[in-house]
Amino acid sequence: MTTLIPDADRLQSYLDRFSSADVGGTPGGGVSRPAASEFDKAARDRFQDTAEELGTVVRVDDAGNMYARREGADPFALPVVIGSHLDTVVPGGRFDGILGVCAALETVALINDAHARTRRPIEIVNWTGEEGARFAPAMVGSGVVTGAYSIDFALSRTDADGISLGSELDKIGYHGDVTNRLRGFFAALEMHIEQGSVLEDAGLDLGIVTVIQPVRWCSVTVTGRGGHAGGPGPAGRKDAMVAAARMVVASREKALRDNDFKTTVGRFSIEPGSNNVIPHRAVFNLDVRSATDDRVDARIEELRDLFADIAEEEGTEVDLTVDWTMRSAGFSAEIRSLLAATADAHGASHTEMRGTIGHDSLHLAQMGPTAMLFTPTRAGRSHCEDEYSPWGPILAATGVYAETTLHLADATSI
Amino acid sequence: MTTLIPDADRLQSYLDRFSSADVGGTPGGGVSRPAASEFDKAARDRFQDTAEELGTVVRVDDAGNMYARREGADPFALPVVIGSHLDTVVPGGRFDGILGVCAALETVALINDAHARTRRPIEIVNWTGEEGARFAPAMVGSGVVTGAYSIDFALSRTDADGISLGSELDKIGYHGDVTNRLRGFFAALEMHIEQGSVLEDAGLDLGIVTVIQPVRWCSVTVTGRGGHAGGPGPAGRKDAMVAAARMVVASREKALRDNDFKTTVGRFSIEPGSNNVIPHRAVFNLDVRSATDDRVDARIEELRDLFADIAEEEGTEVDLTVDWTMRSAGFSAEIRSLLAATADAHGASHTEMRGTIGHDSLHLAQMGPTAMLFTPTRAGRSHCEDEYSPWGPILAATGVYAETTLHLADATSI
Repeated sequence: MTTLIPDADRLQSYLDRFSSADVGGTPGGGVSRPAASEFDKAARDRFQDTAEELGTVVRVDDAGNMYARREGADPFALPVVIGSHLDTVVPGGRFDGILGVCAALETVALINDAHARTRRPIEIVNWTGEEGARFAPAMVGSGVVTGAYSIDFALSRTDADGISLGSELDKIGYHGDVTNRLRGFFAALEMHIEQGSVLEDAGLDLGIVTVIQPVRWCSVTVTGRGGHAGGPGPAGRKDAMVAAARMVVASREKALRDNDFKTTVGRFSIEPGSNNVIPHRAVFNLDVRSATDDRVDARIEELRDLFADIAEEEGTEVDLTVDWTMRSAGFSAEIRSLLAATADAHGASHTEMRGTIGHDSLHLAQMGPTAMLFTPTRAGRSHCEDEYSPWGPILAATGVYAETTLHLADATSI
Repeated sequence: MTTLIPDADRLQSYLDRFSSADVGGTPGGGVSRPAASEFDKAARDRFQDTAEELGTVVRVDDAGNMYARREGADPFALPVVIGSHLDTVVPGGRFDGILGVCAALETVALINDAHARTRRPIEIVNWTGEEGARFAPAMVGSGVVTGAYSIDFALSRTDADGISLGSELDKIGYHGDVTNRLRGFFAALEMHIEQGSVLEDAGLDLGIVTVIQPVRWCSVTVTGRGGHAGGPGPAGRKDAMVAAARMVVASREKALRDNDFKTTVGRFSIEPGSNNVIPHRAVFNLDVRSATDDRVDARIEELRDLFADIAEEEGTEVDLTVDWTMRSAGFSAEIRSLLAATADAHGASHTEMRGTIGHDSLHLAQMGPTAMLFTPTRAGRSHCEDEYSPWGPILAATGVYAETTLHLADATSI
C-alpha cells in the first residue's frame, strides 16, 4: 500500500498562494475575500492555474462552483469529491476553507507523485459563496448542486449594495454552464479547521466529524416610534433601539442558562440613524444554534415569546422571521471508519466530534456518502485575522486526507 | 400702533412651498432635505425667489447661510434677525425649522403690507445645517457666524459617504463670501415648534423660552473579540454587541430613575457585520441631556463608570468620548417681556418654558440679545413625518412674532 506523506513546503506554498495581498490577504495576517469579488476572481484564477499545473481539467458550473478533475481509469465511475471554499468573511482568516482547498490540491499532487492510476476520477471543488458573508444564505453554491436552492434563487441573492451574485459572477467571468454541475459522487471528503477548541484542549491532531449541528438565521424587526432626543423622557418613548438592545441581552442571558444553546447578533441596524432622533426601527439578525433541530426550533419559539414580552413592555412591536434553516446532517459511518483506520496507520491522534458550524459538506451529505475531518484551531479563534491552525496537525491531517481519498478512489463500495 | 394679523392663506402657501415633493417632501407627509443636498438647493432657490418677491436683498456667506435683508431707514443700524433653517433630518417633518422661516417671511410680508418703514434693517436668515443629521455637529452654520466653529472646521465636516460640506455647498452654488456674514445684531428672534408636549398639554398658543438646556454627544466604542457564531459558547465570548446592548439598556434604566436626565442612542453599528460572526467592535452615539451643564457632565461621568463595569464583566474594553458640547444658554429677559406683552395684547395664551433641544438661537445668544417662541407640537412628535403643529396657535404665534419683530426694528434700546 502506498503511504502518502505531504510535502510541507509545497503545502505551505499553496496556502501562501491563497493568502497573499493580491488575492485579498490583509496586513493583519488574514484574508478579506468576499464571494465573487475581484479578489475572489484573482483567487479563482490562481486555483485554475494551480489545478492545471497538476494536470487536472477545470470546469465551472452555473453557480460559479469550480471543479478540477483528475481523470480515473473508469471515466464513467462516480468521482470522489474533495476540496472546500476560497471565499472568506471580511476580515477573515487564512485557513477557513482555504486549508481544505490546499489540502485537496496537495492530495492530488501526492497521488500524482505516486504515479497512481485510480479507478475513479477525483474532483477538487471550490464552492461558491460558502460564507454567506456577502450573499446570504451561506453555502449557496453547494446548495444549488444538491437541490437545496434553485439556481434562480442563488443568482438573485444581493449584497449590501443591492448587487446580485449572478451579475458579479458574470463580471468576474465565473458564471459557467449548468451542464458542468456535479451530478453525483461516490464519496465526498472535506478537511477544515475546527473553529472551536475541542482538539486544541485535548491535544489531538484531528477530529472526525460525526454530525453537524443545526443553525437557524432569524431576522428580528422592532418597530417603535420616532421623535426628537430632546422631546419625550424615557418613560414616554417607544424606542426601538432600547427594545432591541433588551432582546439582545435577554437572548444571551437565556443562552448562559442553557449549556447547549448559542445566539449571536452579527448584524444590527437602526433607523433613521441620526444622533438626535429616537430610532423608530431596529433590525437585527439572530444566529441560533443547538444540538438538534427540535431543540433549536424550541429555543426560537421561546425567544419569540420573550421578545414579544419585551416589545410589549417597551410599547413597541416585534416580528421574528426564520430566514434560513440549516438542518442537522450526519456523516457516513463507513468513511469515518476509514478515516480513523488511516489516522491510526499514520500515527495521527484523533477523536470523533460534533460540528457546530455549517459547511458545504452539510449539503453534500444529502446527495451521497460524505465526511469531514477537522484540524485544531488556536484558542478556537476563527473568522478573524489571527485565525491559526498549527502546522504539525495540519501535516498529519493532510496525510490522512490524501490517503483516505486515494483509498476511496479505488474502492468498489463503501 | 399697527396690529399685524397674519394672512392665513399666504402663510400656508409659504409652508407648502417648502414641503412639496420637488424640495424633498415625502409621500408620508414629511420632508427629507439633508443639508446641502439637491433638495436643499431647490429649497434655497425657492427661499431666494420668495424673499426677492418681498423686496429683500439676498446674500450668502461662506458657510452657506442665507440672509434676506429688508433695509431700514438707518442702514447703519444693527439689524433685527429673524428666521430659522430649511434643512431636515431624514425623514423629518414639515414644521421643524421650516415654520420659523415661513413665519419670518410672513413677518416681512405683513410689515410690507403695513407700509412700515422701520428704523433698523430686518434680516431673515436660513441657517446652514442646523440639524447636524448629514454633517455633524448640529447648528454648524450659525456656529461659524458666532465663532463657535472656524469656517475650515465647518466646511471640512463630512457625511456618511465622506463628502464634505464645503464641496457640497460649492456643488449646489451656495458657497458664498465671508464678507456676507452676519457681524452683529440688535436682537434675534426665532419661532419654532416645541418638539415636546408642554404647550399641548396646557392648551396654550405659544411658549416663551427662558433657557435652552445643554446637550452632549458622546461616541462610545466597545472592543471585544471576533469569532465564529458556532465557536465559543456565551460564557467564552467577548461579544462587543452584547456589551454595547447592556450599556444601552443601562443608560435608559439610569434615565428612568432620574426625572431630569435623557439618553438617546440614535446611531449604532457593529463590525464586521456578518450573520455568523461575533462582533469585535460596536460603536454608538449617546445623546445626553439634563437641566444644567453641571448635571449633564456629572451624569456622563456616572455613565462612564457604569460602562467600564459592564465592559469589564463582558471581557471587553470601552472608550467614551464627548464629541460635541452644547452648553446651556439663557435668552434675553427684555425680549421675553416684550413677547409676553405682545401676546397679551393679541389675546394669545402663553407660558414661559425651558427648551430641551438645540437651536441656532443658542449660538446667537452668545452674540447678542436673543429669544425664541415655541408653538405646540401634536403629541410631542417631531423629527418624523407626522410632526404637526396646529393651525390656530401657529397663526396666533406668527402674529406675536411679527408684531414683536416690528417693535424691535423701531426700538432704540432693549
